[in-house]
Parts: sequence; C-alpha cells; structure tokens
Amino acid sequence: MEYLDLIERPTLLLDRRKVLANIERMAVRAEAAGVRLRPHFKTHQSAEIGAWFRDYGVAAITVSSVDMALGFAAAGWDDITIAFPVNLRQMAAINGLAERVRLGLLVESAETVRRLDEQLTAEVSVWLKIDAGYGRTGIHWENEVALLETAAAVSEVNHLKLAGILTHSGQTYGAGSAEGVRRVFGESVARMKRAQAVLREQGFEAAVSMGDTPGCSLADSFEGLDEIRPGNFVFYDLMQQQIGACRLDDIGVALACPVVALHSERGRIVIYGGAVHFSKELLPGPDGGLNFGRVVALNENGWTPLGEEVRVASLSQEHGIIQADGDLLASVKVGDVLGVLPIHSCLTADLLRRYLTLEGGRIECINK
Amino acid sequence: MEYLDLIERPTLLLDRRKVLANIERMAVRAEAAGVRLRPHFKTHQSAEIGAWFRDYGVAAITVSSVDMALGFAAAGWDDITIAFPVNLRQMAAINGLAERVRLGLLVESAETVRRLDEQLTAEVSVWLKIDAGYGRTGIHWENEVALLETAAAVSEVNHLKLAGILTHSGQTYGAGSAEGVRRVFGESVARMKRAQAVLREQGFEAAVSMGDTPGCSLADSFEGLDEIRPGNFVFYDLMQQQIGACRLDDIGVALACPVVALHSERGRIVIYGGAVHFSKELLPGPDGGLNFGRVVALNENGWTPLGEEVRVASLSQEHGIIQADGDLLASVKVGDVLGVLPIHSCLTADLLRRYLTLEGGRIECINK
Repeated sequence: MEYLDLIERPTLLLDRRKVLANIERMAVRAEAAGVRLRPHFKTHQSAEIGAWFRDYGVAAITVSSVDMALGFAAAGWDDITIAFPVNLRQMAAINGLAERVRLGLLVESAETVRRLDEQLTAEVSVWLKIDAGYGRTGIHWENEVALLETAAAVSEVNHLKLAGILTHSGQTYGAGSAEGVRRVFGESVARMKRAQAVLREQGFEAAVSMGDTPGCSLADSFEGLDEIRPGNFVFYDLMQQQIGACRLDDIGVALACPVVALHSERGRIVIYGGAVHFSKELLPGPDGGLNFGRVVALNENGWTPLGEEVRVASLSQEHGIIQADGDLLASVKVGDVLGVLPIHSCLTADLLRRYLTLEGGRIECINK
Repeated sequence: MEYLDLIERPTLLLDRRKVLANIERMAVRAEAAGVRLRPHFKTHQSAEIGAWFRDYGVAAITVSSVDMALGFAAAGWDDITIAFPVNLRQMAAINGLAERVRLGLLVESAETVRRLDEQLTAEVSVWLKIDAGYGRTGIHWENEVALLETAAAVSEVNHLKLAGILTHSGQTYGAGSAEGVRRVFGESVARMKRAQAVLREQGFEAAVSMGDTPGCSLADSFEGLDEIRPGNFVFYDLMQQQIGACRLDDIGVALACPVVALHSERGRIVIYGGAVHFSKELLPGPDGGLNFGRVVALNENGWTPLGEEVRVASLSQEHGIIQADGDLLASVKVGDVLGVLPIHSCLTADLLRRYLTLEGGRIECINK
C-alpha cells in the first residue's frame, strides 16, 4: 500500500534518504575535524531513528531531560549527556541512570554542585554550562570567579568528575546570514577557549563542547573543540533553511494534512493540522504576513515545494489556513492531502510523536 | 503526601474547586437562558473531568476531532458533535461512531455533503458551518446561495439530517474589552438568526449553535440561540483574563515548574518548563516585552499570583526564563517549584496530557 493511502489525520512524513544524508554529512564534518559528534536526540526522540546514527560511528548522545535519558538508556545508549541544568527534583531517576550509563550532567553554580553531590549515589561527569553570548542560562564566559568557584566545587566533592565546559550558541539563530552564523559561532568558540584557558591556568582540565545546528552546519572549522552536539540537523526545517544552514531539499520531514474545506473566493484552503500539530513557531511570510509552514505537493516519491507564497498563514488548535494560489485552488479537493514543511521540526516532532516513512513504515517516539 | 512533594517535572496542577465553579457558572447561565450547554471537551481532553459535567446536567458534548470523539464515546458519551469540517479520510471511524452515538458533523459545501453521504453507512446529524465574521472557515453568513444549496443537498441525500447552523465567533478574542466581546457576540448572533431566517423561508428548519468562551462568559443574553459550545471556560487562562472573560482567580490550572538555575545579576530564573509544555502562545508583557505566562507562588492550598511583571519572558524547547523581581530572587532556590498560569490552557493541557490535583490525585487525558 502506498504511504499516501495510509494518511487519515495529520501525519509526520519522514524521507529516510534525506535524513540519512543529513546524518552522514554532519558525521563526515565531525570526523574530518577530529571532534566527537554527540548528536542531540531531542529533535527526533525515537529509538529507531537513533539507531540509524550508529552506522555513522555515533556512540554518545545528548538529550534534554531525565525522562528522555531514561528512554534512550532503555534503547541501549550508554553514554548520555543531559544538556539541561540538572533538575534536583529527579534525583532517584538520575541515580538510577548514573549506575547504568556514562551520565553527563550540567551544573552552573557551586551551590548546585554541592547539593547534587549530597544526593548522588554513583559517579557522574559534569559539564560547566557556559553562557557564551546567548544569554539564556549558564556561567557568563567572562565571569572567571564563578567559573573557578564552580570548577573548584566539583573537585572538592565525591561523585562529580569535571568533563569540560559546554555551551549552546543559540545566538546563531539570529545571525541573519550564513556568514553571520560563521562569525557568531567563531566568536562563541573563542569565548569558550578563553574560559578553558582560565580553568587550565588553575589546574582544571576541561574539554569544550558546542552545540547548535546553524553553527555546526556552517562553521569552516571546529578547531579547539572536542565535541559538537547539534540536533535539529537530522531533519532541518524552514527556520534552518532561512538561516542558510540547509537547502529546502534537505528538510527531511513534512506534515501531511487532510484538506477539509476550500474557499476559492478568498484564496484559502482549510487543512486538518493546527497548533497541536505544528506548535505556533512562525516566520515572517514573503508578503509581510505570517508563515507557519510552506506547502508541498505530495507524490509517491515524496514531496515537491509549491511557490514560496503558498503557506500556512494562520493556525487554530486543529485548523490550519493555507494562503493558496490559483493553480493549487484549481487542483485540490476536499479529502486530498497536502504536505507542509514545518517552521521548527523539533516542536512538530515532539507534538506528533510518530512518523510515517515514504515506504509506508511507522516509527514511534519514546514515551514522554 | 502533599501535592508539592509529588512534583518532579513540569506538572499541570488543577484546582478542582475552581474548575467546578467554572462549570457550574456556565451551566447556570445556559439553564437560565433555556439553551443547551454542549461544552467543548478539547480543552481538558479527560474522561474524568468530563464526568464532572454530568452533575451539572450536561448530556451532550463537542469535540474537535474524530479521535477525540472515539475517546469520549468510549467514556460513555452518546451525543457528540465533532465541531470541525468533516474529515473524509476518517470515514471508517466516523461510520463506527455513527452506529454507536448521536453523531453531529459539520459540512460547508454541497459537494462535501454528497461525498460524505456516499460513504456513510449510518445516519448522522449535520450542522452547516457558518462564518459569522471570524473569517476562518464556513459558509459566509451573507452567502445565501451557498447556504441554500448546501441545505438542499442535505435534504436530498439519505444519511444526513439537518440539525442546524453552527459558528465559532473567534473574533471575540480580538474585541479588546468585555463590552467589545458583548457587541461582537451580539453581532454574530444577529447574523446567525438572519441565516436561520433565510433557511426557514425555503422550508429548512435549523437550530442555532454558537461557541466561544469570551462570548458565552460575557453575553447578556442568549436569546435566539438553541445551544452554546464554549470549551476553554472549564480552566480559563491569561488570555481570557486579559479579554475580561474571567478573573485571575478563576483560572483553574497552573503549570508547576522546577527551578533549575538562578541568575540574580540579570533578574532571571530558569525553570524546567518550555515550548513543549506551554506551547508558544503569548501575550504582550506589561513592560512591552513578551509574556508566556504569569508566575504564581505555590502553597498547600493552591497558588497566589506574584506581581504582574513577574512572568515567563522567553521559552526554548524545555527551558523557560522568568523575569523576576527582587523578592522572588531572594526567596527562591534551585530545586524549588514555581507555578505559571498559562496563556492558552487548551494548548498547555494538550501538551501535558495529565493533571495533578491539589489533593495529590492524578487525572489522565484520553489517548491522542
């Protein structure tokens, strides 16, 4: 049976060929640079997709929650960094994980180090979370006092071993161009190397871990880094394409949505596919309006983008409203299926929690 | 054990007393006006919370998908309207439902009526979906040709019975004030009565069904209506409070989020609670910034709002960043739990899919 016949409701299509090419490209970049690729699995959240990475030499992963770590530990991964400030309210689960896998945790204050240690029953690696310019969380890269205090606290307690310093250069998302991404990423790398040197002067050896898909996709060099942790690259999405981190054709997922109403007089098509499927992440539309996703025509081999102006212009809980052109309005019927490339594939995948491949195979996410 | 001790990760707290008061208030309004309350269950999506409505005389419900209808049919509801343009790709499930319950479907074109009828094996009620000013979908209230054509098509086929005309006056959300909501809602009612009269002149009897929480919470009168279908009122949220549809104290859910990092120098607190918990619905903040939720202090009896300026100012996939004041920064520690009133409770509940009551009870949503 063709995959199109299996679509009854909003369904996240996955083009395995594109996804494997995305994984391979990043694995080759990392290998060429001699850095470890520790991909962030929060994007796909699937044991089956996770297993595809092993063929490209990936043995260590990143996740964003203790629960996700439990899911991937159950799927056989034994080297897992939880790239989120450690949640002291999940110590029972953290201790369970620490006994089974090489567990990496993030800390960003001496107080958290001490309180974490008091409640740990097994050894864990810790990364000092650094704010290298994004401003979300972490020790500010110039705050040498906090950096050294936290590293010293790690060295003074029993269950923590300093692995290194880690940042997410999320500021690359606003860099405006591929050149801008390279510049911002390079600036973050320099800040991390400075923090590493400050630690080294006081006798603390620390590896450097960086992660963000724009920077890891576009950087000319990973010199000075030990590890990269991109996640979104496995699927990419319209935001990455707009940033210049991927081509439109690299996007590996599309949300297939049944057409439920046509309003030719207004140039609009109503699809079953709303905020509970896409989330509400958006980009500016080509004509100044809002863009919640770009429409693609589906065929037995996958999808073909329609004009840039054909987009999801608004979202309710379950409805999406497509701003269509005359060609699309003339060809589509209620009961057909249209595809939509998501703005932010991580959030769309998190909402759908399963995939349909172009070969008609179902892939599930781990339990949330 | 107190409910606070049960919180390990982002957890949607439910204040049963407030929720029951919200249900009762709307049930009393409907009863006083002599209209049927057919509440929209997309907000809570829970069989257990659904059962609470029975004590207030509710026997008929609204849902927004075929899958949700299946879930509530399994929970014993036998009069269900799927308030979404009928999805012709789920005919097997629709036929299964039509054999077991009084099923209401929405149509908005003669073509869809005919194609639906061809594939139905049991009788269903249909509502003509009217666009009474919101502009999302439906037959435009002034389009008498389409209205009469669609009604005639219903009368000419075998499995469809015309129940009435139905609209969602979503334009009340932008009405700007309680008085504005009443005016916009009244305008929609007048448009629906006009469409009803057009149908009646041609011999088609049609009930009138209206649904939106601001209008149903604030309207002075439901005269001319047969049925109201509000949903969000069961919990309300910050958007409803801003509109004037509820008081801050009526909001029945709050997302409890562990504190994972403090940045006193920047006036910020990092919580475990992000876009995958809140969604990305937002309001303008009091100081011109963004507002993804208002912070409340949790105690054994529930929650107490902090100052209006204390809010979630940005969201990543799992992180929330609270813009805090000095009092909060001085009192909170990593590992504590803060509550956040959601901007849009429907989306937050859809993401969390379970609740924790203040008595420590767990309530699950139906399977998605």
